[in-house]
Amino acid sequence: MAAQPKEINLVVEELRKLVGDRVTTAKGVLDQHGQDVFSTKCVPPDAVVFVESTEEVAEIVKICNRHYVPLIPFGTGTALEGHFMAINGGISLDMSRMNKILRVSPEDMDVTVQAGVTRKQLNEFIKDDGLFFPIDPGADASIGGMSSTRASGTNAVRYGTMRENVLSLTVVLPDGRIIRTARRARKSSAGYDITKLFVGAEGTLGVITEVTLRLHGIPEAISAAICSFETLKGAVDTVIQTIQMGIPMARIELLDEVQVDSVNKYSKLGLPAKPLLMLEFHGTEAGVKEQVETFKMIAEENGGSDFDWKIRPEDRNELWKARHEAAFANLAYRPGCMAYTADVCVPISRLTDCIVETKKDIQESWLTAPMIGHVGDGNFHVSFLIMMDDPKELAEAKRLNARLVSRAIQMDGTCSGEHGIGINKKPYLAEEHGETVDVMRMIKKCFDPHNIMNPGKIFDL
Amino acid sequence: MAAQPKEINLVVEELRKLVGDRVTTAKGVLDQHGQDVFSTKCVPPDAVVFVESTEEVAEIVKICNRHYVPLIPFGTGTALEGHFMAINGGISLDMSRMNKILRVSPEDMDVTVQAGVTRKQLNEFIKDDGLFFPIDPGADASIGGMSSTRASGTNAVRYGTMRENVLSLTVVLPDGRIIRTARRARKSSAGYDITKLFVGAEGTLGVITEVTLRLHGIPEAISAAICSFETLKGAVDTVIQTIQMGIPMARIELLDEVQVDSVNKYSKLGLPAKPLLMLEFHGTEAGVKEQVETFKMIAEENGGSDFDWKIRPEDRNELWKARHEAAFANLAYRPGCMAYTADVCVPISRLTDCIVETKKDIQESWLTAPMIGHVGDGNFHVSFLIMMDDPKELAEAKRLNARLVSRAIQMDGTCSGEHGIGINKKPYLAEEHGETVDVMRMIKKCFDPHNIMNPGKIFDL
Repeated sequence: MAAQPKEINLVVEELRKLVGDRVTTAKGVLDQHGQDVFSTKCVPPDAVVFVESTEEVAEIVKICNRHYVPLIPFGTGTALEGHFMAINGGISLDMSRMNKILRVSPEDMDVTVQAGVTRKQLNEFIKDDGLFFPIDPGADASIGGMSSTRASGTNAVRYGTMRENVLSLTVVLPDGRIIRTARRARKSSAGYDITKLFVGAEGTLGVITEVTLRLHGIPEAISAAICSFETLKGAVDTVIQTIQMGIPMARIELLDEVQVDSVNKYSKLGLPAKPLLMLEFHGTEAGVKEQVETFKMIAEENGGSDFDWKIRPEDRNELWKARHEAAFANLAYRPGCMAYTADVCVPISRLTDCIVETKKDIQESWLTAPMIGHVGDGNFHVSFLIMMDDPKELAEAKRLNARLVSRAIQMDGTCSGEHGIGINKKPYLAEEHGETVDVMRMIKKCFDPHNIMNPGKIFDL
Repeated sequence: MAAQPKEINLVVEELRKLVGDRVTTAKGVLDQHGQDVFSTKCVPPDAVVFVESTEEVAEIVKICNRHYVPLIPFGTGTALEGHFMAINGGISLDMSRMNKILRVSPEDMDVTVQAGVTRKQLNEFIKDDGLFFPIDPGADASIGGMSSTRASGTNAVRYGTMRENVLSLTVVLPDGRIIRTARRARKSSAGYDITKLFVGAEGTLGVITEVTLRLHGIPEAISAAICSFETLKGAVDTVIQTIQMGIPMARIELLDEVQVDSVNKYSKLGLPAKPLLMLEFHGTEAGVKEQVETFKMIAEENGGSDFDWKIRPEDRNELWKARHEAAFANLAYRPGCMAYTADVCVPISRLTDCIVETKKDIQESWLTAPMIGHVGDGNFHVSFLIMMDDPKELAEAKRLNARLVSRAIQMDGTCSGEHGIGINKKPYLAEEHGETVDVMRMIKKCFDPHNIMNPGKIFDL
């Protein structure tokens, strides 16, 4: 139930007493907090609070809970599925000032950060200890936001997703209680896994304010490479065989020839306009050499060519910069367009079929839609580049995406590999999970009876 | 609320109509289902049903839910914390006939099994595909039971625990609904992580009937070794430095000199009566060689000696057989005794302190208590070998264990690394989790309002 205007005014007044001028109703700020970075549709909140501590968040949550006013946690705004749209109005909790690294233990290879710390900030801080935090969704997202969407990205094939790398959370529950979900031990079988319940809950069960993460040692040797293929099938089959051989790939990314053309133009790379794999190997000097030799053999058998090994850090960085800029490259590829993005993940044995059938769909359509993917996990994206004010284009993108999602689910895959559900993917959740969605609803109602925590996201109640 | 005798008779009658002579009230069978394998205390259920399918379990759950009669899932009986004691009476669901391997996908390296399949049965079935399931708690436990206690064991340092290796579950909810918690994709961010909520729930939220597991490729090269140390500190410091160096150990197990004496006598090993590490390395031929060299260097710096590399599979098997028989060795070490077992896990930087202080406690006590541990994870056990009919010995074991648990929790560790809470560890859950236990209770009440699913385990309501 959305709060009435009078209550909102009361709430803003109460918040002002609590945080002073860190609560604002300035239109520019509201608009900035009512949409994702890639979205054109803005549904602004009624107010934004720039919070500074867990205790303060708890007080704010209590106020909102008393007035049934929605709360929407906001990290860096880089979510992709409409997570910030204030469809019931309410308060946006801007976490960006909660950006302290609270403790690092190099011996235990773990760290505790406030939710607003970004992944690049964290990596900068820990690199002198020989450590890094591998989860890399491309954007310089906040750790709290990454936890909430169960983010992953290019390194997940080797290091896992946020699911595997969050050890413990501090959470403010919808009634204002502050809990810590787990201790810092690497494993535990002491009670329900409350940590994992909040990872991926998209802010609908509580506000994550602190996160304890696993870290990893920076490998002795890192080698990156690119490799072109005559066919999409050849590239995907190479990925599958590489994973099945047990080569511990750190990154294995696929770009179809349209995506290659797009990054070529944006990042001036001059790559052959063919399906491409971008690779990274981590290990000891000898280990990496061995991995590279095995990979090369597999790639050659599948029509791979134009190998280019990037040994120097600057060449490697250039490569991954281009990969990370692919989303911006796509926006520039068709000026004025927006990207309507698919995010499926399938068991790897079905990946070739899924990608080849999807490519056929795209070729039979009139839309431009580059494909890119974290294919070592079976996860790939299609970016339908459409003019948002053209309902015909949006309808066609939705039609193709719905076909892709159904295809992925029939292959025992998921409608969302890493972006979350938000608002955009809600129509597909029941198709994927059936009655399990009712179990999710039951949990939501039990945690948040007044439906104040990021309401209307993941599922409707 | 325990069901009254009349209702139990009604329920047994209804069950008999459903499953015929697969329901029994024979005393011998009841007694066998009312205790753990290492427990002397038996609290038998009112009846045992040998179930054969998910649908049948659903029907049984509906009957029990209607009459408020408790249900206790039973795998192989190898749990350790009183998980099977029917403290409110009720029905034991024996899962051992649900022992079918439903599908294997070597390409995806995953498998779906019925909950009663044991880990050895599974490994036998998949080995010709070059695959193995690494989680190894010692006992030949059922996959359903291992999921329910979030089991781990010797290989977890490299391959993770059940938490990391269960991809999806089929679960019968307390109201009889059947759900599947996730698809088979390697990762997903589609909604709440219902899978992880059931992993480690000890049968208190529903009955796990099918499990989809990640598998791993049998490594090209496996090398095992043992290494003795002058001091416990030297052994533990070696473990810590090995982990911190990033050596991907497959197994790294510590036995103190008392435990070595115990396995020496039971398995006739003739090892030096000193703190011992048992090790296993997995990788390519070259990779294993490199790991072994690095480990050796670290061990030597910490006073390691008497290296003995076990290259031949039969020597390796003998070594791990002795490790797995350590629990039986301990029972034989003090004839007539039972083992009261601690199971703490701490951040690895605190492991030396935790083990050395605990050793001092034991030395200052009159009890015999071998120590053994999966120390690569920071997890270790103390087996207090006591006569159960001697209240003084039990009191002393409880005193020492309480000190150990508090020590571990103060070090940001857990009271249970891998055995679960059951009945025995309930007193420590609040010390570890504080108000988070209330959140667990809230979830339990929401899933199971009649408290029929393994009641009285993990926490009291």
